[in-house]
Amino acid sequence: MKNVFGIHPTAVIGDNVRLGDGVTVGAHTIVYDNVVIGAGTVIGAHCILGEPNVAIYSDVESYRNPVLTIGEGSLIRSGTILYAGSELGAGFECGHRVTIREGASIGHHVRIGTLSDIQGHCEIGNYVRFHSNVHVGHKSTVKDYVWIFPYVVLTNDPHPPSETLLGVTVEEFAVIATMSVILPGVTVGRNSLVGASSMVRKDVEPETVVAGNPAKTVASIHDIKSRADGTAVYPWPESFDRGMPWQGIGFKKWRDSAESQ
Amino acid sequence: MKNVFGIHPTAVIGDNVRLGDGVTVGAHTIVYDNVVIGAGTVIGAHCILGEPNVAIYSDVESYRNPVLTIGEGSLIRSGTILYAGSELGAGFECGHRVTIREGASIGHHVRIGTLSDIQGHCEIGNYVRFHSNVHVGHKSTVKDYVWIFPYVVLTNDPHPPSETLLGVTVEEFAVIATMSVILPGVTVGRNSLVGASSMVRKDVEPETVVAGNPAKTVASIHDIKSRADGTAVYPWPESFDRGMPWQGIGFKKWRDSAESQ
Amino acid sequence: MKNVFGIHPTAVIGDNVRLGDGVTVGAHTIVYDNVVIGAGTVIGAHCILGEPNVAIYSDVESYRNPVLTIGEGSLIRSGTILYAGSELGAGFECGHRVTIREGASIGHHVRIGTLSDIQGHCEIGNYVRFHSNVHVGHKSTVKDYVWIFPYVVLTNDPHPPSETLLGVTVEEFAVIATMSVILPGVTVGRNSLVGASSMVRKDVEPETVVAGNPAKTVASIHDIKSRADGTAVYPWPESFDRGMPWQGIGFKKWRDSAESQ
Repeated sequence: MKNVFGIHPTAVIGDNVRLGDGVTVGAHTIVYDNVVIGAGTVIGAHCILGEPNVAIYSDVESYRNPVLTIGEGSLIRSGTILYAGSELGAGFECGHRVTIREGASIGHHVRIGTLSDIQGHCEIGNYVRFHSNVHVGHKSTVKDYVWIFPYVVLTNDPHPPSETLLGVTVEEFAVIATMSVILPGVTVGRNSLVGASSMVRKDVEPETVVAGNPAKTVASIHDIKSRADGTAVYPWPESFDRGMPWQGIGFKKWRDSAESQ
Repeated sequence: MKNVFGIHPTAVIGDNVRLGDGVTVGAHTIVYDNVVIGAGTVIGAHCILGEPNVAIYSDVESYRNPVLTIGEGSLIRSGTILYAGSELGAGFECGHRVTIREGASIGHHVRIGTLSDIQGHCEIGNYVRFHSNVHVGHKSTVKDYVWIFPYVVLTNDPHPPSETLLGVTVEEFAVIATMSVILPGVTVGRNSLVGASSMVRKDVEPETVVAGNPAKTVASIHDIKSRADGTAVYPWPESFDRGMPWQGIGFKKWRDSAESQ
Repeated sequence: MKNVFGIHPTAVIGDNVRLGDGVTVGAHTIVYDNVVIGAGTVIGAHCILGEPNVAIYSDVESYRNPVLTIGEGSLIRSGTILYAGSELGAGFECGHRVTIREGASIGHHVRIGTLSDIQGHCEIGNYVRFHSNVHVGHKSTVKDYVWIFPYVVLTNDPHPPSETLLGVTVEEFAVIATMSVILPGVTVGRNSLVGASSMVRKDVEPETVVAGNPAKTVASIHDIKSRADGTAVYPWPESFDRGMPWQGIGFKKWRDSAESQ
């Protein structure tokens, strides 16, 4: 197919852009100054990489675009806007029209769905999965292997509008189902599950299920059985491995070998 | 006005694209291989049609772009992304920056609002209306004359993340109000009404109103009166006809004549 | 930096477009006929300004694009679509991929976040702040100094689908937290606070806090203390001034001087 791979002639490329071997830059995509893209990465059409921060509008003379780094083997789908001053690890993949602002630190093998809005100044671990339209406020911390589903919001302002920002922390392997809101300063515990449409204002204990508005503890995750075969589903790494480092190995075997390293 | 109709010189057109008479393709729009567009259809600016599926990234040599078909007399507003491998009926109309992935089968005279995200591998009937920002998961079935309002999610995974997908079914003439979530495997019955901000985990009986988190049955649809004139509002086809096939005819008269065919 | 300021050569400009001194129009942006842009305004890349209304598709011969006016010193971030027939005051600022349809009247120094969807035929005052992904239905009235957070919906149809539209009114200084829905015809009172994930079906009294699904009054705003220092937070203008006309002056002093004018 034409117009999919390589540097498209309609792309607009700034100064001091470093493209690794075999990088694709799609039609009408704009790459501003000081963007570093790892080998084999595919940038779709209509993207903007290294979008300047707001400081450029107040003092263009002294403005210097911060570095945006995108790891090797990544796939940035069309319409995505990545600000200058963030760092994305290897194997990053995103849907369409994602926005990631400055100061985001994102690990390796992360996937972020269409229309998600990462406000920047946040930490996202490795193998994190965001479905479409996830909103992550400043100062959020999302650890490895977390799953977040559509229209979830991680808030940060306990009494808006204010200058007090208390980020949300989501611990390893936690799952937050669609349309849930996590209030400022809340910790969502390791291996926990937040049900759909929850409004979570208190910390979620590890390995518990919370649900409702406001959210309350409704079960242990160990109580949930598969609707396909009746077996235990959670902690999910023991029943799901697609795209995870334990794929084809089994979580416990992988963990034991990994921990032994 | 300039720059609105015709094939804009900045459009990028692939191989084996079949454009019907009088088709418009807007500025900076990209049409990939094997797209078929019916006569009189208008494609806005900054669109992507026939976006390749993910398979292209793993094996470009053997990849062949599936056909995308858009029916005649359609209006695809700017910024919309339609994947290869879907089929949209005649008179399709959508807002801006809609995403429709592969394997979507969409009937005729459907309207889908700005920023809606149709995940593909789903069935959508005729004369369906989605307002802005509706999210439709894989395996959803939405039948004819259904209305869905902003930020509604049709889910599919009963214990995320898993490989068990149970789609939602929305029956004819059902209405789902804004910010509601329909849990996996639920059937929303014919002529029913789901109130705003509902979290629906059980089937909704035909001709009932459900509301709340979790949603409960709160009324029969026949109990709801117009705030304009106090008359019965539901089933809505008897009080609303704009854009519907019974416009200017009356629903019962149209139905009787249609059923007699 | 290149490619940020000035009229980019890839921009497509229509007839009768009036650009004030020092206006920037970004790469691949389309400006249709009859757009008026005030001095010093920056239009990002991939925008569409003066998008024609739907009438153009039914009768292109007689269609004349209504005027779109953007005030001086504004910042329209990339990917934004502004319809013909709206008016935006000076100092307007928006995020990425905002949509504002025809018939919107927007005051000065307003900020609207990424992906927000303003349906048009609405009134928005001065110094209003919308965060990302706010949905404003037709006939909404949002007065000065209102704050609305992500995924809030201002609805308008009391029994959808119908031809009865009852807009929401949000009074001065009111705050609506994330994921809340305001039902048709509701008035959100001056200085009030709507908690996150609320479903508001009754008027909100001034200076009260409502929360829940359905929302109930839970406190006076005067009861809420800062998590940073324990002081009263609301009415918020007395504790927050960034970007407001009383910045560096103090709200009461500013108000007294302003009221004396």
